[in-house]
Amino acid sequence: MSMVLKSTAERADVWGRLFARYLPDVPFRVWPDIGDPAEVEYLATWVPPENLLELFPNLKILFSVGAGIDQFDLSRIPPHVQVVRTIETGLTDGMVAYVQFAVRAIQRDMLRYINQQRQHVWQALPVRSASQFRVGVMGLGQLGVPVAQSLRGMGYVTQGWARSRHVIDGVKCFAGEAERMEFLATTDILVCLLPLTAETAGMLNSALFAQMPRGAALVQCGRGRQMVTDDLMAALDEGQLSAAILDVTDPEPLPADHPLWDRPDVLITPHIASSTPAESGGMTIINNIRRYLNNEAPVGLVDRTMGY
Amino acid sequence: MSMVLKSTAERADVWGRLFARYLPDVPFRVWPDIGDPAEVEYLATWVPPENLLELFPNLKILFSVGAGIDQFDLSRIPPHVQVVRTIETGLTDGMVAYVQFAVRAIQRDMLRYINQQRQHVWQALPVRSASQFRVGVMGLGQLGVPVAQSLRGMGYVTQGWARSRHVIDGVKCFAGEAERMEFLATTDILVCLLPLTAETAGMLNSALFAQMPRGAALVQCGRGRQMVTDDLMAALDEGQLSAAILDVTDPEPLPADHPLWDRPDVLITPHIASSTPAESGGMTIINNIRRYLNNEAPVGLVDRTMGY
Repeated sequence: MSMVLKSTAERADVWGRLFARYLPDVPFRVWPDIGDPAEVEYLATWVPPENLLELFPNLKILFSVGAGIDQFDLSRIPPHVQVVRTIETGLTDGMVAYVQFAVRAIQRDMLRYINQQRQHVWQALPVRSASQFRVGVMGLGQLGVPVAQSLRGMGYVTQGWARSRHVIDGVKCFAGEAERMEFLATTDILVCLLPLTAETAGMLNSALFAQMPRGAALVQCGRGRQMVTDDLMAALDEGQLSAAILDVTDPEPLPADHPLWDRPDVLITPHIASSTPAESGGMTIINNIRRYLNNEAPVGLVDRTMGY
Repeated sequence: MSMVLKSTAERADVWGRLFARYLPDVPFRVWPDIGDPAEVEYLATWVPPENLLELFPNLKILFSVGAGIDQFDLSRIPPHVQVVRTIETGLTDGMVAYVQFAVRAIQRDMLRYINQQRQHVWQALPVRSASQFRVGVMGLGQLGVPVAQSLRGMGYVTQGWARSRHVIDGVKCFAGEAERMEFLATTDILVCLLPLTAETAGMLNSALFAQMPRGAALVQCGRGRQMVTDDLMAALDEGQLSAAILDVTDPEPLPADHPLWDRPDVLITPHIASSTPAESGGMTIINNIRRYLNNEAPVGLVDRTMGY
């Protein structure tokens, strides 16, 4: 058996040392130098090779090096191959930090101050307290739950929505389509942390924005294709939304001539809200291979029927 | 006896209702309609009238409507007049929120991303975790202590400096001139929350910046005259500092033609980090007048020998 990593040179370097030290019995190879393909039982990658099945006939686990697996076409991966996401605290800490920044920025009118600075204007706006904002987190998974808990700790009225029912101390939780309208109608700042699925693609559109209170704001930390960019711009133009902080966009990367760049009511970051540090990501996968070899389920095993 | 408020129309309106309800025995008057000046025992103001002593011969307490009293010339206020700052949670909450925003913004390179957005550039920078930053809070008073505690809770290596010795759980505290150099040498993000005194005026200068690690950042939430603006710009130009987030400036308001406005490594807000909400500010002063009438010391009584 062997392990193949198809990723960046930095990750290859760090993981090579970790595997040599902590899992010396599993030969570690870096794409495209994969050795005998028939020996490869574990593959860790963001984007998989085109001909995954033909190339690795004995593949047992396909690891995503990130939290998401929407880059995989699950329909083309045979059922006996386990698909495993990377779950570790660096990823969560990064997202919590980003959302704290973004929600504080909206609370304290920072997009308007950034624009005033550009215009050399010294003009105070009324201070609004955290308790005046109802923040709604869409997606209550590995990232959404700690994000909601941290927002509640910062003094926001915090609520959450997910497909299934959740219970989080101090956070009112809504579930499913039936409760989505009430959730949106009572959300001043919407934080999207949903996975990309067939259901969530295009979900952030004019119809959804219209269900929110007038002047609401969006923090988009999910996936670019969940948002209809033209609908966002129309909602901002109409005043239905007042501000958006976007870590992901559609298209992504955002082309240099896209009108989103110049909007004073939009803050754009280049998909950096959270990523898995090389060291902890490698250790997470080493520990998961150990679990597999001990006949335990890997942490982050994807439910193929749910798509996440 | 009577009470005079010299402030904004909004505060006058809110306080008028609060005094009528909670302290009806003390006539409440709004500057300049002060009634008989000899009856005025309490004055609440930000900037006092020029001829304070002559105007109000029977003044007992001079209240600052904010946390600061640097706008008062203490040498011209007779010793029998008590000087009282406003201490209430709205002020603290506002400052904690602002500093959380500012420190997260520096941790996550937001000034560079704002600038990249202006240039239509989609380029990720390495993610740095909170634990990679040593944040140093200068000034450990009513605002500095909760700010330091909140930063520690967010995962930063947090330390503090003040003129006198403090003990804060999980926060290494430095005291006085003797320990200032060690504090600065180990501070990656300096948060200034000092009061304005003869000692702190001009303190944030080239000599101080030179004692910090190369590439350190500044969050200035104290008073404008504590910082030598030309020294800040020189330290940024030389790379000794990498970024500054300024809520106060010198001069303040910052003139429209000032070179600070256009710097991509500086984020400017117009002295809005924290202010006392009218309602809680009024109740704080009502409670302090009650304490005074019961022969108790007001909360926020200024030690005239310390200047704060």
